[in-house]
Amino acid sequence: MATVRLLTDAELSPEARAVFDEIRAARKTDHVNDFWRALAHDPVSLRRTWESIRQVMAPGALDPLVKEMLYVAVSIANGCDYCIHTHTASARAKGMTEAQFLELVAVVGMASETNRMVGAFGVEVDEIYRQP
Amino acid sequence: MATVRLLTDAELSPEARAVFDEIRAARKTDHVNDFWRALAHDPVSLRRTWESIRQVMAPGALDPLVKEMLYVAVSIANGCDYCIHTHTASARAKGMTEAQFLELVAVVGMASETNRMVGAFGVEVDEIYRQP
Amino acid sequence: MATVRLLTDAELSPEARAVFDEIRAARKTDHVNDFWRALAHDPVSLRRTWESIRQVMAPGALDPLVKEMLYVAVSIANGCDYCIHTHTASARAKGMTEAQFLELVAVVGMASETNRMVGAFGVEVDEIYRQP
Amino acid sequence: MATVRLLTDAELSPEARAVFDEIRAARKTDHVNDFWRALAHDPVSLRRTWESIRQVMAPGALDPLVKEMLYVAVSIANGCDYCIHTHTASARAKGMTEAQFLELVAVVGMASETNRMVGAFGVEVDEIYRQP
Amino acid sequence: MATVRLLTDAELSPEARAVFDEIRAARKTDHVNDFWRALAHDPVSLRRTWESIRQVMAPGALDPLVKEMLYVAVSIANGCDYCIHTHTASARAKGMTEAQFLELVAVVGMASETNRMVGAFGVEVDEIYRQP
Amino acid sequence: MATVRLLTDAELSPEARAVFDEIRAARKTDHVNDFWRALAHDPVSLRRTWESIRQVMAPGALDPLVKEMLYVAVSIANGCDYCIHTHTASARAKGMTEAQFLELVAVVGMASETNRMVGAFGVEVDEIYRQP
Repeated sequence: MATVRLLTDAELSPEARAVFDEIRAARKTDHVNDFWRALAHDPVSLRRTWESIRQVMAPGALDPLVKEMLYVAVSIANGCDYCIHTHTASARAKGMTEAQFLELVAVVGMASETNRMVGAFGVEVDEIYRQP
Repeated sequence: MATVRLLTDAELSPEARAVFDEIRAARKTDHVNDFWRALAHDPVSLRRTWESIRQVMAPGALDPLVKEMLYVAVSIANGCDYCIHTHTASARAKGMTEAQFLELVAVVGMASETNRMVGAFGVEVDEIYRQP
Repeated sequence: MATVRLLTDAELSPEARAVFDEIRAARKTDHVNDFWRALAHDPVSLRRTWESIRQVMAPGALDPLVKEMLYVAVSIANGCDYCIHTHTASARAKGMTEAQFLELVAVVGMASETNRMVGAFGVEVDEIYRQP
Repeated sequence: MATVRLLTDAELSPEARAVFDEIRAARKTDHVNDFWRALAHDPVSLRRTWESIRQVMAPGALDPLVKEMLYVAVSIANGCDYCIHTHTASARAKGMTEAQFLELVAVVGMASETNRMVGAFGVEVDEIYRQP
Repeated sequence: MATVRLLTDAELSPEARAVFDEIRAARKTDHVNDFWRALAHDPVSLRRTWESIRQVMAPGALDPLVKEMLYVAVSIANGCDYCIHTHTASARAKGMTEAQFLELVAVVGMASETNRMVGAFGVEVDEIYRQP
Repeated sequence: MATVRLLTDAELSPEARAVFDEIRAARKTDHVNDFWRALAHDPVSLRRTWESIRQVMAPGALDPLVKEMLYVAVSIANGCDYCIHTHTASARAKGMTEAQFLELVAVVGMASETNRMVGAFGVEVDEIYRQP
């Protein structure tokens, strides 16, 4: 259940509609995720968020699949169920195999375990890892 | 400042020493991270954790550098300063470039932003992403 | 699905009933949120929690709407779906407009992004912000 | 480095001083933790927090050492370094052995690992664990 | 809704089936939690996770009920609804009373409150709690 | 200790220098926070982040001081020490009194407490708060 109503295409402002057109063109599908339908109440945030994601997730020094897997990993760590589902779907669409997804889950679990053990012991960063 | 004293090599139990020998051989360095010196008080946890990490981080469907970057991303999301520093160092040792690290940080930031916006709107997973 | 049964009015202990009476009087509605029906199993915690909230959320140096929006922001950051919904409803009842809610969401998202980027870089507090 | 100055005994308001007297009597030591010296700027919060902690941590259905260990576990999960150190010290003062602390750390780590794996798989609560 | 299909008994690999047999024997019930049915896609992770949990949760310096309550507390702090439900059920099966559960919740709530207040004030660990 | 070197003014690329000029003009001070000196390694992220913050934090339906306090509250919930210090300083510069800061801390603490209690009980959103 949402805290704001999800806007239908007919209810979009012209500014929001323009972003939806870009999303549909970029994603090559008519389906626009419900997150964007919630955010469409605020066309300025909608545009800023869409452009930031497009820029951050574009191919660069990291390939888009690795970026998508990093996105999934962070979403798991932050406990965002919606984000886990949508970005896992994106990663699969970009070629993530089931074996890769299962290894990703194992890494996220292991990191979460040692993150907390390190905190419990209150270990400070080893001298050799400090910047001069 | 730690909640437990960091053990020196001279203070290790034979079981802990055996794990330290494996760490040194695997990492090809005499330096053993202080996390292991804290955990060495509990040789059973030390062995289990070391063997789990070795298994999870081994080459498989994902290459070791991608795994290391996922580890860094999760550590950032969990706010573990020690883990960020040590695993960033490991990722660099495995070939992560500065441009790749900067892109990783951008993805982690972007995911954290949208994770929270999605939660604020209480959006439920789109029908098309649900398992049949 | 809850881990404890939600108590009906008929099942309340006298101590719990007294708190429910205060909640109904303060909130000017017969509806008592299900959180209180779960907590009513422990009348001592129920009273302590109710009195603490009443004290903390009372008008003071900050006006009650600002406090309610801070409550919503923290609930988003902590990922508590129930709390987001009930406190968003409270904030709207106290006058929060949709435009204000959308700006709040944007701030929470932006803060979550930079919180994690700062952690990734391990930046220490600038000298000028430190207490003498 | 703190965001507020830590108050010395000489700077306390009479209301804050009364709480400090109670803390010293209850803890049987002249040392008052710096957290209380920060919170002393707000004598109403100081009293409410101190009385809530005293009530919650008192012997009841759970013994005080178990409560203290739960406090440490939550502080590790929340990443509060100060709280980990002070409540680990309290737990040791109440009899926690080093072996118990090490097992506590192992449980916190394991729970953090499976918490995230469960989230990654998006598993819903099994029918048999749901309240009728 | 899950990101991976839950495997039925008929779909298990021999390696996964062997772990399920151990789970059924250890838990003395035919029901195997859905988490294991998700993880069964990755028999190596399944075995590692099951063996780690069994080792970590075994009786030792802490009794199994205390460990189970620590597990619940961490799951609450991490916001894992599935884990809260299944480990609360386990704790009840091991003898946790309703009064004990309610006190556990109060401690987790109180710790979460002070964890954040301490962070807000940026208080550093008191000199007397630091390791020499 | 940082994972990347903080750039001095002399080391900035022309693109990064242009952003620094804007920061100095907007903040009316020669001091540029060390976060920006870390992010300056990636001029594209630097510009995107700076422009997003400027847009999100500008006066709108919420006044800038309220936005800054929301930023502080989220930073406390996320445990970002750097962000707490810098945004508390900004909030004070915009007029936040000490009494307001202390009330903010009390609200953040209280929300964190009830967020976790609600999660522990697994309470679902009351029917009356659901969107039609």
